[in-house]
Amino acid sequence: MDEMQLVNLTIAEAIALIREGQISPLELVETCLARIEHLNSKLNAFLSIMHESAIEEAGYASDAIGRGENWGPLHGIPIAVKDIIDAAGEKTTAGSEFLRDNVAQEDADVVQRLRAAGAIIIGKTHLHEFALGATTINPHYGPARNPWNTDCSSGGSSGGSGVGVSAVMCLGALGTDTGGSVRVPSALCGLTGLRPAKHRVSTEGVIPLSWTLDTVGPMAYTAHDVAILLDVLDAQPLTPASCLDRIDEPVNGLRIGVPTDDFFWLETDYQVVGAVRAAVDILSDMGLSIVDIQLPMITEVLQASQIISIADAVAFHQERLRREPERFGKDVRTRLQVGSQPSAPEYAASRQLGREWRRFLGDLFRERIDVLVIPTTPTPAPKIAGAQSVELGKVLLRFTYPFSLSYLPSLSVPCGFTSDGLPVGMQLVAPSEGMVLRVAHAYQKGTAWHTHRPAL
Amino acid sequence: MDEMQLVNLTIAEAIALIREGQISPLELVETCLARIEHLNSKLNAFLSIMHESAIEEAGYASDAIGRGENWGPLHGIPIAVKDIIDAAGEKTTAGSEFLRDNVAQEDADVVQRLRAAGAIIIGKTHLHEFALGATTINPHYGPARNPWNTDCSSGGSSGGSGVGVSAVMCLGALGTDTGGSVRVPSALCGLTGLRPAKHRVSTEGVIPLSWTLDTVGPMAYTAHDVAILLDVLDAQPLTPASCLDRIDEPVNGLRIGVPTDDFFWLETDYQVVGAVRAAVDILSDMGLSIVDIQLPMITEVLQASQIISIADAVAFHQERLRREPERFGKDVRTRLQVGSQPSAPEYAASRQLGREWRRFLGDLFRERIDVLVIPTTPTPAPKIAGAQSVELGKVLLRFTYPFSLSYLPSLSVPCGFTSDGLPVGMQLVAPSEGMVLRVAHAYQKGTAWHTHRPAL
Repeated sequence: MDEMQLVNLTIAEAIALIREGQISPLELVETCLARIEHLNSKLNAFLSIMHESAIEEAGYASDAIGRGENWGPLHGIPIAVKDIIDAAGEKTTAGSEFLRDNVAQEDADVVQRLRAAGAIIIGKTHLHEFALGATTINPHYGPARNPWNTDCSSGGSSGGSGVGVSAVMCLGALGTDTGGSVRVPSALCGLTGLRPAKHRVSTEGVIPLSWTLDTVGPMAYTAHDVAILLDVLDAQPLTPASCLDRIDEPVNGLRIGVPTDDFFWLETDYQVVGAVRAAVDILSDMGLSIVDIQLPMITEVLQASQIISIADAVAFHQERLRREPERFGKDVRTRLQVGSQPSAPEYAASRQLGREWRRFLGDLFRERIDVLVIPTTPTPAPKIAGAQSVELGKVLLRFTYPFSLSYLPSLSVPCGFTSDGLPVGMQLVAPSEGMVLRVAHAYQKGTAWHTHRPAL
Repeated sequence: MDEMQLVNLTIAEAIALIREGQISPLELVETCLARIEHLNSKLNAFLSIMHESAIEEAGYASDAIGRGENWGPLHGIPIAVKDIIDAAGEKTTAGSEFLRDNVAQEDADVVQRLRAAGAIIIGKTHLHEFALGATTINPHYGPARNPWNTDCSSGGSSGGSGVGVSAVMCLGALGTDTGGSVRVPSALCGLTGLRPAKHRVSTEGVIPLSWTLDTVGPMAYTAHDVAILLDVLDAQPLTPASCLDRIDEPVNGLRIGVPTDDFFWLETDYQVVGAVRAAVDILSDMGLSIVDIQLPMITEVLQASQIISIADAVAFHQERLRREPERFGKDVRTRLQVGSQPSAPEYAASRQLGREWRRFLGDLFRERIDVLVIPTTPTPAPKIAGAQSVELGKVLLRFTYPFSLSYLPSLSVPCGFTSDGLPVGMQLVAPSEGMVLRVAHAYQKGTAWHTHRPAL
């Protein structure tokens, strides 16, 4: 298989080709490693490349296919893992200076599940320092660069995972999402990326940002691929393939809620607004009904989710902040210092607002809509040069942060490109992963945004 | 039925006598109202007495029995409700000056459930102002007095419920428990009182103290009666009588964990220590095995639970604190002002400690023990004269607060009297209400502490 064939393969297609013996895990992994070798110095997607073990495992996986064995639903598929998630024997730097030499003893729960499903872990991807930002402009390891325009940010904090998948250095990747860290780089890199419901995917073996809001989520080009990955990662599945089983169910008649609040539209890039509006029209043409809704508490929810997550981060990093604050990058240090300021009652009020928000959305989804649609980010990928990471973080996370506090699944789906060729993502929120994936899959059957690849 | 017969009736006995037509709901309610009339000026258990509606409902309940009807498991049983829980058309003062004239529009969920089960709500019981203290020494409405010694505190915050039941002005009562507000007055008044698991009983229609830790729980003389009440209150029952059904199951072979940590014994009143030790011996004689355990994080958990609950309270009362702080009693105002001081990261760290605590106890209960036994309070009821409410709160809640943060059910059970005739309570903690109630019921079959009544 040559590189040009590879770059257009979805995980689902690769799984089928491996099963049929048309391609081998080894050639798939070798092609990805070659792309990493060729592209990583330019894109900075990977902080460590697991060349040797990946080749070895891919060899075994290829031999197994030869013997008619299949290790699981991801047999031989090269997957990258954000470098805040432990893989035994590999470094977990969390993109920080503090943990430059930190070697993980054990696989995180999600890595165990990937391996048990037959996936080949190909490397550890770049990220915003300690996942505490949305640009992956990292003072210690350099910026991750957006494959659609290498002058631009990949988004973050799971920027390396976004870059790795969109540049097809791997077929799928894991990110973590606290305030939008899977959804934002997915949107900015033209991928489909899921923040699962709280507790659906285990965060065991992941360095915390916020104990309240951390999740681990999969990123790939298509909703179908994300469903394959989620079913593998799921720590509490109803059935082994609960998302995949229902992804093809019809969506006509479902009700799409579109908020009319200025919050989402007034200061949002007009090309983003246009792309999301067009996506809503397409969904409408597919037989979904569009319902105007209001989210009156959205501004307060945004603030509350930030207060909670940054206070959690300050509590986790308190020793480092006290002893060696200068080892944090300037933007992360600023964010932690500002996040130290609210009082315990403000944190308490923020949590209570979260409960009200969840009750509000619970009623909304019970009574009026099936899926909520909004832009994932207010802007496409910003330029790296001159970027102000603290300010940019506020902009990029504006639409994702509030839905973290909803504890609901939330999916970013490619829905267009700007005139500059930068991807635009829309965000789907619903009470179940199955619902957002099913609507996204239906949308992707009728659109081609997820089929484009960056010219590299 | 005369008063002397009434004072020894349990709820279970009264239910049976009503069913058999031996006593009528009307005479039962009239007897309780007469006791309230006679005793309340001395004991200050009730802030409002629902004389008229109780008589009317009891009349209907009596007529219904005459027609062979039965409205539910509490048909005709007089129950009192802490005056922080809404009963439609009645005042809910929360023991505060602010809400002196606050009339509830609707029944709280728990009041609805009591009424649907046929109970007669007889009045609203006294409490520590806004439930923010453990003595029910209330500057606005006077102290509730302990029926076992009227110079002594009833404990709190559900002090009026403790006094009302122990002085048999009603057969059972509802309290609320955030840091120990059901368990402490139950211990100090010689009752069995349950803090249920988080979310088991709805707090809808209850004025909040802490959104994180508030619960509503039943108080009565016996574990059997508490089980009857819990099954009525339960918002998520497995079966309609899930606790009661299993209350008689054998307990021999169960493992009782007794912590050896100095925290529980070193500064505890020697008569309390003696009574709890003796209770453990009795449980051992009944065939339960005693397991020494350690709870190394207990001091930090105590502090964390206080930080969370008081910060929640400050957030809830922030408008009142800003506008009219002087309308709070001095002790409550002090408590709220001190509770404002921790930072958001301290709150975040406290919540994270709570998660670790729950994980620790989860492992402990899975691997080593079935029930944990400790004293409910470090001292018996303190004197009212000269009491320092803030300091006393810290003492009285020391053993209950940490188990609030466990989210596990926790039950106070009478286990002796001091040489001064004051009741002593032991606290049982387990992963299910059924387990604590079953062990307490077995204990009460072999002991008589719950059969004593104060001389009044």
